[in-house]
Amino acid sequence: MSIILIEVDGLLQRFKDLIKKTSENLESNIVLAIDVDEKDPQVLLEKCVEIIDAVSPHICGVKFGRPLILKLSLNNQIRDLIRLAHEKKLVTIMDAKINDVAHTNLNITTQYFDAGFDAIIASPFVGWDGGLDTVFQEATKRNKGVILLVHMSHKGASQGYGRIVIDPDSTKKIPQFIIFAKNALAWKADGVVVGATHPNNLTMVKQIVGENVPIFAPGVIAQGASPKDAVKAGADYLIVGRGIFSSSEPEKSAQKIKDEVNSTIKKLAKSDFEYS
Amino acid sequence: MSIILIEVDGLLQRFKDLIKKTSENLESNIVLAIDVDEKDPQVLLEKCVEIIDAVSPHICGVKFGRPLILKLSLNNQIRDLIRLAHEKKLVTIMDAKINDVAHTNLNITTQYFDAGFDAIIASPFVGWDGGLDTVFQEATKRNKGVILLVHMSHKGASQGYGRIVIDPDSTKKIPQFIIFAKNALAWKADGVVVGATHPNNLTMVKQIVGENVPIFAPGVIAQGASPKDAVKAGADYLIVGRGIFSSSEPEKSAQKIKDEVNSTIKKLAKSDFEYS
Repeated sequence: MSIILIEVDGLLQRFKDLIKKTSENLESNIVLAIDVDEKDPQVLLEKCVEIIDAVSPHICGVKFGRPLILKLSLNNQIRDLIRLAHEKKLVTIMDAKINDVAHTNLNITTQYFDAGFDAIIASPFVGWDGGLDTVFQEATKRNKGVILLVHMSHKGASQGYGRIVIDPDSTKKIPQFIIFAKNALAWKADGVVVGATHPNNLTMVKQIVGENVPIFAPGVIAQGASPKDAVKAGADYLIVGRGIFSSSEPEKSAQKIKDEVNSTIKKLAKSDFEYS
Repeated sequence: MSIILIEVDGLLQRFKDLIKKTSENLESNIVLAIDVDEKDPQVLLEKCVEIIDAVSPHICGVKFGRPLILKLSLNNQIRDLIRLAHEKKLVTIMDAKINDVAHTNLNITTQYFDAGFDAIIASPFVGWDGGLDTVFQEATKRNKGVILLVHMSHKGASQGYGRIVIDPDSTKKIPQFIIFAKNALAWKADGVVVGATHPNNLTMVKQIVGENVPIFAPGVIAQGASPKDAVKAGADYLIVGRGIFSSSEPEKSAQKIKDEVNSTIKKLAKSDFEYS
């Protein structure tokens, strides 16, 4: 059980509720992707601490990537960074992109949850049976979240996530990511990742998952999409990495993106906006 | 550059040639999946050393999984295990199942190659552009191997790898893994992973990749497939984990599987066998 789960309202709750409350409290829908790199592990750790310290007033969570885990120790420095994020009342997400067989997935998931992560990202491409079944079971047992990769933000994503496949239910031709969005609903995922670089896809996913599964959108700033357009297209949370930590003034950049997102959300709330 | 590359014939060579020569020298087509688990990292390390020491006369390589990397340090204990395997003239494969965007994939790949791995496993589902392009480029530059996941061994694999999709070239309906097998040929992969639990699929992949791309088959023993049937269906190398390390006598189990595979290969060579 992570610290933040107790502190927020004294009751265990699902990750999607936890991040919603966190983002309302902190008035930010920005998740920092802390993908900084440094040759020396000690320098890397210090840089991570510095960035979390600086931008914490403008974000609601921190997403860790696999390269950082390889360079720092999961059971020492990474735990310290998770603790720091939790002290700032931020949620923590491990972008593990889990895609192995069930017993291996369970081992990986258990190690990340033991280290303190509140949620883990997994690929629905490995399916349920003997694939992600153990990941969802473990997350449910520990009140942690599973976030599914539904569409990624790079060009080659169209060769996999965007491929036209035969829907086993309707036998119609549909894009692969639509099946993944339906998986997220059926499997009770606590979030989906959809690249902001394909706003139409974002909206298609929003129409399927509605308010049941929040959408996390990477691909803004450094990869070209605008935060405003991503929110308009249906993103609930924006995942921002280089747009913040590679900026000469990370805190100001984080604040600017947060303000842009917040003002877009306010405008949308005033209008009779519908995702279409 | 790994030690073994120099030792085998004094010239840099592709990973697929390296493992072929290694397996001929050691008269074994068995790759040990060293997926052992122990709570205490030091005990885990000792157990790994013990198993590699015991079974090295009967295998040609060692495949490391993500759970082990999380528990041991990539830059300390894992390097020691890679060095041990290389001293035994075995090749080393990192089962990273890489499936991220290009710059993250490159960072992960670089860290694993720097640690000494000879080859890395990646998922073709993320596509080439901005996906695996950087992984293949880095591998080519350093004469390391990339092995693609073409079909996995668990039940849920049919929901992804086995899904019927529209072939962008012919517009015909084909299984997803056939496209992955074609990717492996086109991208000049040094291997493909195809689960032995679906022997028909193994044979279909063999018909596509022929002798150009060796097939690595997991799923024997613990997951139910027989080593003999896997070789008959087209596997070039068998990946064996629990069938060896969970056995009460790992060395004897490894020898038994090796002998079964070798005698099957000899019988096939004597006949006019064709994969069909």
